[in-house]
Amino acid sequence: MTDRDDPEEFRALAHSVVDWIADYRAGIADRPVQPQVEPGSVRAALTPLPEQPQPFDALLDELDRVVVPASTHWQSPSFFAYFPANASLHSLLGDMLSGGLGAQGMLWATSPACTETEQHLMDELAAAMALPAHFTFAGGGGGTIEDSASSSALVALLAALHRADPDWLADGVRGDERVYVSAETHSSLAKAVRVAGLGARALVVVDAEPGGHGLSPDALEVAMAADVAAGRRPILVCPTIGTTATGTVDPVHRIAEIAQRHGAWVHVDAAWAGVAALCPEHRALLDGVELVDSFCTDAHKWLLTAFDASLFWVRDATVLPAALSLTPEYLRNAASESGAVVDYRDWQVPLGRRFRALKLRAVIHARGLEGLRAHLRGHIAIASELESWVVADPRFALAVPRSLGLLCVRVVTGRSPEDDDAATRRVMERVNASGAAFLSHAVVDSRYVIRVAIGAVATGPEHVKSLWEQLQAEAAAAL
Amino acid sequence: MTDRDDPEEFRALAHSVVDWIADYRAGIADRPVQPQVEPGSVRAALTPLPEQPQPFDALLDELDRVVVPASTHWQSPSFFAYFPANASLHSLLGDMLSGGLGAQGMLWATSPACTETEQHLMDELAAAMALPAHFTFAGGGGGTIEDSASSSALVALLAALHRADPDWLADGVRGDERVYVSAETHSSLAKAVRVAGLGARALVVVDAEPGGHGLSPDALEVAMAADVAAGRRPILVCPTIGTTATGTVDPVHRIAEIAQRHGAWVHVDAAWAGVAALCPEHRALLDGVELVDSFCTDAHKWLLTAFDASLFWVRDATVLPAALSLTPEYLRNAASESGAVVDYRDWQVPLGRRFRALKLRAVIHARGLEGLRAHLRGHIAIASELESWVVADPRFALAVPRSLGLLCVRVVTGRSPEDDDAATRRVMERVNASGAAFLSHAVVDSRYVIRVAIGAVATGPEHVKSLWEQLQAEAAAAL
Repeated sequence: MTDRDDPEEFRALAHSVVDWIADYRAGIADRPVQPQVEPGSVRAALTPLPEQPQPFDALLDELDRVVVPASTHWQSPSFFAYFPANASLHSLLGDMLSGGLGAQGMLWATSPACTETEQHLMDELAAAMALPAHFTFAGGGGGTIEDSASSSALVALLAALHRADPDWLADGVRGDERVYVSAETHSSLAKAVRVAGLGARALVVVDAEPGGHGLSPDALEVAMAADVAAGRRPILVCPTIGTTATGTVDPVHRIAEIAQRHGAWVHVDAAWAGVAALCPEHRALLDGVELVDSFCTDAHKWLLTAFDASLFWVRDATVLPAALSLTPEYLRNAASESGAVVDYRDWQVPLGRRFRALKLRAVIHARGLEGLRAHLRGHIAIASELESWVVADPRFALAVPRSLGLLCVRVVTGRSPEDDDAATRRVMERVNASGAAFLSHAVVDSRYVIRVAIGAVATGPEHVKSLWEQLQAEAAAAL
Repeated sequence: MTDRDDPEEFRALAHSVVDWIADYRAGIADRPVQPQVEPGSVRAALTPLPEQPQPFDALLDELDRVVVPASTHWQSPSFFAYFPANASLHSLLGDMLSGGLGAQGMLWATSPACTETEQHLMDELAAAMALPAHFTFAGGGGGTIEDSASSSALVALLAALHRADPDWLADGVRGDERVYVSAETHSSLAKAVRVAGLGARALVVVDAEPGGHGLSPDALEVAMAADVAAGRRPILVCPTIGTTATGTVDPVHRIAEIAQRHGAWVHVDAAWAGVAALCPEHRALLDGVELVDSFCTDAHKWLLTAFDASLFWVRDATVLPAALSLTPEYLRNAASESGAVVDYRDWQVPLGRRFRALKLRAVIHARGLEGLRAHLRGHIAIASELESWVVADPRFALAVPRSLGLLCVRVVTGRSPEDDDAATRRVMERVNASGAAFLSHAVVDSRYVIRVAIGAVATGPEHVKSLWEQLQAEAAAAL
């Protein structure tokens, strides 16, 4: 063995890895989606780190024996929990190439192709989604790929704090900041508020619209006006396009108008649903986005791209570097000082960054934008079909209207809401325990609901039909 | 084309990608390490995102035509800039498997194998590096893999803020916090202080030891005592084991004793150098780490592992969840509530996380811990040889003593220090412009130095010998 890499050894081993992945994916539908595992059992089964090199086959064998049986199979066609985590095989090809290049894209100068491929991709995707032109680099804004929507929200908040008061750089936060969300806003906003040093007291949970779940513009107006009157500073408002629990779309346009009047930054969290704007028939989702300061949607949820790839745009390309840049001597270089390039380290919290654009570029190259739209439309059509079955069956009800590929389903006992809660939970737990599908839950209007999130790459009509048959059987048993 | 993935198509395309990577790496030594590229030229050369699926070969062709010629080849054997970014081919095998599984490891319950493989790896690595047992899960602490040392520093600071005052959760920062670093501490600490809302005023840059570059314990004692007397709160001290500019090792033991007296958290940033503790002869590097609260070293710098993989340990496994946990209903599950499992989302800022442990496990499996040590020792031996050449040549001088694989070299004109600065810079720029090697710089004691960071996976003695010959030729031309 040499200490250096041997490309010929890699060629041979990587081919065996590719075959392992292809076989795993080809057989994934036959596995229980969620494993039955006792805490500690995997750790107990793993071999110690070896002192001497081991045959590579032994690693694949350990995967088969220990890791796969204790894995939740997120790429299973019967994975309906949380939101999907698309890791399409096409995106893996791009991710492999990124690893092969092994570049660090922290500065333009540390690998120009890494930065410019990402800029190009983000401008092109903005156009494909019909985002306003001011989100492109050509239009004075720009996009980047963060690791997650949590990080997108955090950097949006940091940019907002800096814009509200540049002395933030020197003096930090003051304690009078306020950030506005709804009860359904993703917990990453509360986490960003905590990380940024504002404390939970800075988080204002605005009431929902009467009879709905969207953030109420009227309530927002009242809350912001009261804060301003009390000497507090509205920093950021975060409307959501497609909340996690129910897929609710907040009224972005009216929210943005109110926020702007009070000088607050508007960050739109469209982590799951935003990608649907690739389809013209779903562009109404983006109503109001033309008014906001930043917008985020995740390619790694429903856009066929392996984690991590959160697409994040700002309407002013100068705000993130202004808030985040710090330049030690060893990172100084002529290109950065010319002002002619983007240094993406100033658009994120970490310094290092991977060539993430390649995995997206590989997907779009292999499938075309039409292929992406077909993927989204396919799931929405299946969800619509499931919706019709749920509505037609008196043993079930939708807790809220279907949102794209997401349904919130309750079992109806005909007895009390508490009985419905118990039956709903029992049905979900029995489906999950069977391994035939994996569902997760939410609580909506204080009632337990099963979330059916249709969006795994492999999911087709037959898998949703099987799920429905199982739901019916379990509901019949529970009633 | 189907909307779903076709494992057989993947098998064929992935084999072509594997061959592309093997060929790229096999030929990498013949490429100019740093490209000569005008800003905007890559963006101009990239094709628009296609509407229809394209043949995959066209993507590889675009890589060859547009991306590779505009890339800095971080995996080149003649890459000596910054710190290395090891993306060994063995680690890519593990990363491919991680993508193949496509799991989300945010909670134990969302994929038990993902979490437990990481716990097992971190415990085993702690033992292999002879870290104190209290950094293992068995010992009440534990480790995780963050994306970068920047993120490790940030979560350490957040845990420190929470430990100093649990009301931080509700009320945020107060403005009286202080964080102590040296002038050579990585800029990520200043960024963490900014992100956490403390402002630059909270960052205390402590003087160096007389005649050296390490953080002075005496100066730290004075600074902390003065802050405490003035009613300010010492929150965190960050000594570095192997600073970026010079590879300096701060006196961790004495620093930790002083910090503890004032109740401050001690986070050790050993991002680059810490992995050397795998070799018993370098364990003195860790002197004092037995006293600290958290420790970080990056596998993606010098430990053969593709970005991202920052290894981060804490001595108390409860501190990060206490500071970072937020549980919306849709993430609640029986395993988390049992308290018997680790949910790694509570150890980091993002929610989602990839199965990062596999790429490390693949490297260690394929090379053994002995192979990791041989890799590190090989580079240190080459650096030592280069050191002997530099010392013996009157046209050169070391600005500071060699640190493991890092040398800081100056060209000596025999005229003024300013002339030496200019000659040093000119020599570096000519080497970089030639494409034969890539170096970066630092400023040490106000003087310009060339950093020669030896650590790329492919680097052998012959590459360092070539570099030395070129440095000699350019110095002769410059003198």
